[in-house]
Amino acid sequence: MSQIGVIMGSDSDLKVMEDAIKILRQFDLDYDVKISSAHRALERTVDWVKGFEAQGGKLIIAAAGLAAHLPGVVAGATTLPVIGVPMHSGALEGVDALYSIVQMPPGIPVATVGIGAARNAALLAVQILAIQDQALSDKVKNYRAQMLKDLEAKDEALQVRIREEGTRT
Amino acid sequence: MSQIGVIMGSDSDLKVMEDAIKILRQFDLDYDVKISSAHRALERTVDWVKGFEAQGGKLIIAAAGLAAHLPGVVAGATTLPVIGVPMHSGALEGVDALYSIVQMPPGIPVATVGIGAARNAALLAVQILAIQDQALSDKVKNYRAQMLKDLEAKDEALQVRIREEGTRT
Amino acid sequence: MSQIGVIMGSDSDLKVMEDAIKILRQFDLDYDVKISSAHRALERTVDWVKGFEAQGGKLIIAAAGLAAHLPGVVAGATTLPVIGVPMHSGALEGVDALYSIVQMPPGIPVATVGIGAARNAALLAVQILAIQDQALSDKVKNYRAQMLKDLEAKDEALQVRIREEGTRT
Amino acid sequence: MSQIGVIMGSDSDLKVMEDAIKILRQFDLDYDVKISSAHRALERTVDWVKGFEAQGGKLIIAAAGLAAHLPGVVAGATTLPVIGVPMHSGALEGVDALYSIVQMPPGIPVATVGIGAARNAALLAVQILAIQDQALSDKVKNYRAQMLKDLEAKDEALQVRIREEGTRT
Amino acid sequence: MSQIGVIMGSDSDLKVMEDAIKILRQFDLDYDVKISSAHRALERTVDWVKGFEAQGGKLIIAAAGLAAHLPGVVAGATTLPVIGVPMHSGALEGVDALYSIVQMPPGIPVATVGIGAARNAALLAVQILAIQDQALSDKVKNYRAQMLKDLEAKDEALQVRIREEGTRT
Amino acid sequence: MSQIGVIMGSDSDLKVMEDAIKILRQFDLDYDVKISSAHRALERTVDWVKGFEAQGGKLIIAAAGLAAHLPGVVAGATTLPVIGVPMHSGALEGVDALYSIVQMPPGIPVATVGIGAARNAALLAVQILAIQDQALSDKVKNYRAQMLKDLEAKDEALQVRIREEGTRT
Amino acid sequence: MSQIGVIMGSDSDLKVMEDAIKILRQFDLDYDVKISSAHRALERTVDWVKGFEAQGGKLIIAAAGLAAHLPGVVAGATTLPVIGVPMHSGALEGVDALYSIVQMPPGIPVATVGIGAARNAALLAVQILAIQDQALSDKVKNYRAQMLKDLEAKDEALQVRIREEGTRT
Amino acid sequence: MSQIGVIMGSDSDLKVMEDAIKILRQFDLDYDVKISSAHRALERTVDWVKGFEAQGGKLIIAAAGLAAHLPGVVAGATTLPVIGVPMHSGALEGVDALYSIVQMPPGIPVATVGIGAARNAALLAVQILAIQDQALSDKVKNYRAQMLKDLEAKDEALQVRIREEGTRT
Repeated sequence: MSQIGVIMGSDSDLKVMEDAIKILRQFDLDYDVKISSAHRALERTVDWVKGFEAQGGKLIIAAAGLAAHLPGVVAGATTLPVIGVPMHSGALEGVDALYSIVQMPPGIPVATVGIGAARNAALLAVQILAIQDQALSDKVKNYRAQMLKDLEAKDEALQVRIREEGTRT
Repeated sequence: MSQIGVIMGSDSDLKVMEDAIKILRQFDLDYDVKISSAHRALERTVDWVKGFEAQGGKLIIAAAGLAAHLPGVVAGATTLPVIGVPMHSGALEGVDALYSIVQMPPGIPVATVGIGAARNAALLAVQILAIQDQALSDKVKNYRAQMLKDLEAKDEALQVRIREEGTRT
Repeated sequence: MSQIGVIMGSDSDLKVMEDAIKILRQFDLDYDVKISSAHRALERTVDWVKGFEAQGGKLIIAAAGLAAHLPGVVAGATTLPVIGVPMHSGALEGVDALYSIVQMPPGIPVATVGIGAARNAALLAVQILAIQDQALSDKVKNYRAQMLKDLEAKDEALQVRIREEGTRT
Repeated sequence: MSQIGVIMGSDSDLKVMEDAIKILRQFDLDYDVKISSAHRALERTVDWVKGFEAQGGKLIIAAAGLAAHLPGVVAGATTLPVIGVPMHSGALEGVDALYSIVQMPPGIPVATVGIGAARNAALLAVQILAIQDQALSDKVKNYRAQMLKDLEAKDEALQVRIREEGTRT
Repeated sequence: MSQIGVIMGSDSDLKVMEDAIKILRQFDLDYDVKISSAHRALERTVDWVKGFEAQGGKLIIAAAGLAAHLPGVVAGATTLPVIGVPMHSGALEGVDALYSIVQMPPGIPVATVGIGAARNAALLAVQILAIQDQALSDKVKNYRAQMLKDLEAKDEALQVRIREEGTRT
Repeated sequence: MSQIGVIMGSDSDLKVMEDAIKILRQFDLDYDVKISSAHRALERTVDWVKGFEAQGGKLIIAAAGLAAHLPGVVAGATTLPVIGVPMHSGALEGVDALYSIVQMPPGIPVATVGIGAARNAALLAVQILAIQDQALSDKVKNYRAQMLKDLEAKDEALQVRIREEGTRT
Repeated sequence: MSQIGVIMGSDSDLKVMEDAIKILRQFDLDYDVKISSAHRALERTVDWVKGFEAQGGKLIIAAAGLAAHLPGVVAGATTLPVIGVPMHSGALEGVDALYSIVQMPPGIPVATVGIGAARNAALLAVQILAIQDQALSDKVKNYRAQMLKDLEAKDEALQVRIREEGTRT
Repeated sequence: MSQIGVIMGSDSDLKVMEDAIKILRQFDLDYDVKISSAHRALERTVDWVKGFEAQGGKLIIAAAGLAAHLPGVVAGATTLPVIGVPMHSGALEGVDALYSIVQMPPGIPVATVGIGAARNAALLAVQILAIQDQALSDKVKNYRAQMLKDLEAKDEALQVRIREEGTRT
C-alpha cells in the first residue's frame, strides 16, 4: 500500500518528475505514479484519487503545466494534502502553471512548490509524513546534514583553489 | 429548454455576469444560470454540465477568478463549446484567471474573452448560435449597426462642442 | 464552399497553423487558407472576410503575432465568430499577441485560445460547427475518447515499466 | 503544547492572518502565534523555531510580504513542514512575496499558498495533521460538506430569484 | 485645414486626451478631433484617415485602451506618421494597450508614447512639425526653457524651506 | 549634411541597427551613425546631439538595451524628434528597455517602436521626413505597395500549393 | 559641507523622500536636497553633481519615477556611490522605475533599493558612511537594537492579548 | 585581512561571480570568497558574516538566484553595507531573485544591482571604499576614462568603416 501518490498530466512530465521519485526511493517511501488529466480524463482522475485515499494513501503530489488544473481538481476530490508542481513549459515558461496552482480559491488549498521543483515536492511530502514518524524525521535531518556537508566540501575546494591561485601569482 | 448555460464559481461573480445575462435577454435567448465550483462541487458541476448537454443545451459560458479552473473543467466534461470569462479579482487582478482559462492543454479548448468581459462572452455566444439562425444573425448585424450609430452620435456631439468652443473663443 | 476560413498575418505562421489544418482535415471540414494583414493589406483583408461570409462561410480562425491586430480587425468586419490564435514570437514570447487578441473592447469579441494553440483553435471551430451537426458532434466525442485511450495507454506503459523496475530491484 | 506555530513578520500582517487563526480555532487545534523577522531578529526567529520543534510542534505557518524571506528562513531552521503565505502588500501587490516564498532552492521546500490566502494556509495545516488523525479528517470532510451546502444554498437562492423575475416579466 | 488629427476609440478617452489638445492650442496648431473605432467603425475610420491625409493633414495622434488596435489600423491606412497613446484602463492597467500599440509588425511603425501620456503625444507632434518650421521650433525651445524655470523655481522654494527649517531648529 | 542621426550605446547593437541603416539607404537619406553612451560618455553624447542639430540634422534614432537611458537623454538635449529602439537583450529580454524608453516623464517625449524594431524606427523616420517631401512620400507609398505585392505573392504561392495538394489527394 | 546629496526629479517625490531625510537627521548627517531632472535640466543636474563631489560630498541618493533616468545619469557624472530609489507612480506602479534604475549597463552601477523605499536608501547611505566612522557604526547598531526591541514589544503585546482572550473564553 | 567579502549560494554561481572577482583584483583589493546558504547553512553563514565583520571586513557582495534570500539574511546579520546580485537562473530568468533581493523590508537595505551584474556589484564596492581612499578614487576615475576611450575607439572604427563603405560605393 503506497503512502504517496504522484500524478501528472502527461508522460512528457516524467523526465522532470523523476527527481521527485528518486527522493521518495531514497527515503524508502512507497508511491504510486499515475498519468491522468483533469480535462481528458476527469472521471478516471477522480476515481484514482478516491481509490488512492480509500486504500490508505496519505498525500498526493500533482504536476501539471500550462493551465495546470490537475492539482486543484485533485485537491477538490480529496481531503488529503495535495502538493502541486508547476511545470516549466510553453510560451509563459511556467508562470501560467504557477498562478493556476497556487491561486486556489478559499477552502481548497494546494501546497505549491517552485516551477519545475519536483525534488522539493518530494522533500515536502517526506517532511509531512515525518511529522508522525521519528525514523523518517531522522532521515530528513541526515539529508539536511549531508546537504550541509556537500556545501562545506564545495566551499573548501574553492578555498583551496583560491589559495593555490594566490601562491602561484 | 435553454440553449445557453451560464455557470460561475461564486455568487459574487453575478454582479459582473449580469452584463452577459442582459445581452442574452436582449437577443431573446433562453439561458440557465448556475453557481457551482470545480473544487467544492466537482460532481455537481459535471452533473449539471452533462444534464445541460443532454437537454439540448448548445453552449456554456463559464466565469471564474483566481485559479479559475471552472471553465476548463466544464470544457473537459462536454463537447459543447465553452466560453471562459476571467474575473477581475485578487492580488493578480485577473491575470491568473486569464492564463488559467486561456492556456488549456492540447485537445480541450476554451474560447476565452477579456478579463471581466461578460458582455463580450454573451455576444460571442450569440454569434456562435447565429451561424445557423438567420434571424439571430440579423439581430447581431442590427446590434453592430446600433453600436456604430451610438459612436457616430458621440462623435457628432463632440464635433458640435468643438465648433461651439471655436465660435466662443 | 468552405465553412471555415483560416487567415494569418505571415507565411511564417503556416508552420504552426498546420496543426489547425490537420485537425480540420481529420474532421473532413472544408476550409480556406489566406495570408493577409490588418496593416499592409487592410482592404484586401476586409474584402476576403466579407467574401468568405457572403459565400456561406461559418467561422474564421485568425492567427497573428506581436501587435496581432488581425483577429480583432477580422472580428470587426464580420458577425461570424472569430477564433484568435496568439503566435509565440518576438521578445515578449506571445504575451503581447495574447493581450492584443483577448482584450477586445465591449461589443466585438474574439474567442481566444492559448499562445501557439493552433490545434485547439481548430478543435474549438469543430465544436462550434458540431452544435448543429450530430455527425460532427459524434466525431468530436470519438476524438475525445481516443485522447482518453491514448492517455490510458501511456499510463499503462508507465505502470508496466514501474513494475518491471520493481521486479528487477 | 501547540501543534501549529503561526509566525509573521509584522503585527500589520495580523489582520490577514486572523483568517488562519479562526480556522485553527474552528478545528480545535492549539497554536502559537509569533511576531518575528528574518532580518531584524534572525537569532530570535531561529530560537523560536527550534523551541517550537523541541516542544513537539508539528508544523509552522509563516507569513511575510515584500522580500518575504521569513518562510524560507524558518524552513531552513527546521525539518517540520512550513506553509508560506505571501502577503498582498507594496507596489508589486504580493508578486514579489509569492516568488520569494515559492521559488525556494532545491533541498528546502516551502508549501506555498495564494497571495493573502491565510485561510487556505490554515486548512492545509489541518489537512496535513489530519493524515494521522481520523477525527480531524472527519472534521475536514464535514467542513467540505458544509462548503458544498453553502454553495447549493446560494445557487438555490439564485434559481428562486430567476424564477420570480421570470414570473414577474 | 488642420495639420494634426486626434482620433480616439471612445468619448471616455477625451478626459485624458484633453491634455494633448491643450498643448496643441498652446502651440497654435490646428487640429481635428475624431471619435471612431477600428472594430465598430472600421470603414468610417479609414475614410476619415484618408480624408484627413487628402486635405493636407500632416500627422495623426491615435489613442486607445485594452486591445488598442486603433493606432495600428490608422497607421496601416496612411503613410503619415502616427503617434499612439496607450490608455490607462482595464484590469491590465494599460500594459495590454502599450504592447498592442508599440509591438507593430515590420513595415508599419507607430510612434508610441507612455501609458496615458497624452501631453507627450502632443509635444512629439509639435516637435515633428517643428522640423520644417523655425517659428514652431523656437516655441518648443521656449517651452523647454519654461519647464526648466519651473523646475528651478520649485527647487528654489525647497531650498528656502530647508534653510528656514534649519534656522528654526 | 545628414538629416538623420543614428546613435546607439554599444557596437554590439550595430547588428540589429543595420536593419535601420538599410532602410535609410533604400530611401536615399543621408545619415550619421554614432556609438556613444548616456553614462560612460554623457558630455560626448550631448555634444554630438547638439552638433548634429546645429548642422541641420532633422531627427535622431537612438537605440539602447537594459536601463536604456540613451534615447531619453538625447531627447532631453535636443528639441528634434527622437525615435527610441529598445534592444532585445539581457535577462528581461528588452522589457526593461521598452519601459525605460517609452515611459518618459511629461515634457520630453521619445517616439518608441517595438523591441528590436530597428527597421520600423527607420521607416518612422522616413515617414516623418516625408511630411514635407512629396518625392519621399511617394517612395513610402511605393514601399507600402511593394509590401502588399509581396504579401499577395506569398498568398498566391500558398493557394497554388493548397490546390496542388487537393489535386494529389 | 554635506556628506550626502539627495536629488529627485520632482517636488511631488518629496513626500516619499521625507522618510529618507528623517533618517539622515536621526543619524545627525548633513545633507543637501535638490530637485532636478535628467531630461529637463541635464546640465544643471550634472553641474550640481560635480559641485557636490568637488565640495567633499560622499554619496548621492537619487529618486525618480517612470523612466527614472536620473539615478543613472547622476551615476555617470560622478564616481561617488549612487543609491537609486524607484518611485511608486504611474500605470506600471514603479516596475518601470525599478527596471530602469537597477538594470544599469556594465561599468556604471546604481545601488538600488525597493520601490518607494526612501527609508532604506537613507539607511544604506548611513551604513556606507559608517564603514569608516565607528561612532556612526555604533548608532546603526543601536538603531538595529531598537528595531529588535520594537518588534519584541509588539510580539509581547500580542502574547498578552492572546492569553487574555484565552482566559476570557 | 580582506576588506570585501563575496558570498554566493552555490558553486554554480562562481562562473558569473568571476566577473566581480576580476574587478576586485584589477583594483588591488583583498577579498574573501565564500560559498554558503541562507537555508542549508544558516548558522554557518551568520558565523562567517560576523567573523568577516569582526576581522575588519568593510562590505559584502552576496549573490543568489531563485528565492535568493542570502543577500537579505546577510544584511540582517551585519551592519556593513551588503550589495546583492540577482542570478539569472530558473524559469523566471532572475526576476524572482531581483524582487527578492531589492524589495527588502524597512530597516534592512540591500544595495541591489542588475540581474547577473557581477561586474557592477564589484565596481559599486570599489566606489564605496573609494569614498575614503583617494588613491582608489583615482583608479575609479581612470577606469571610467578607459571605458570612455574604449567607446571612442569603437566609434572611431565604425566611422572609418562607414567612410570606406561610402568610398567603395
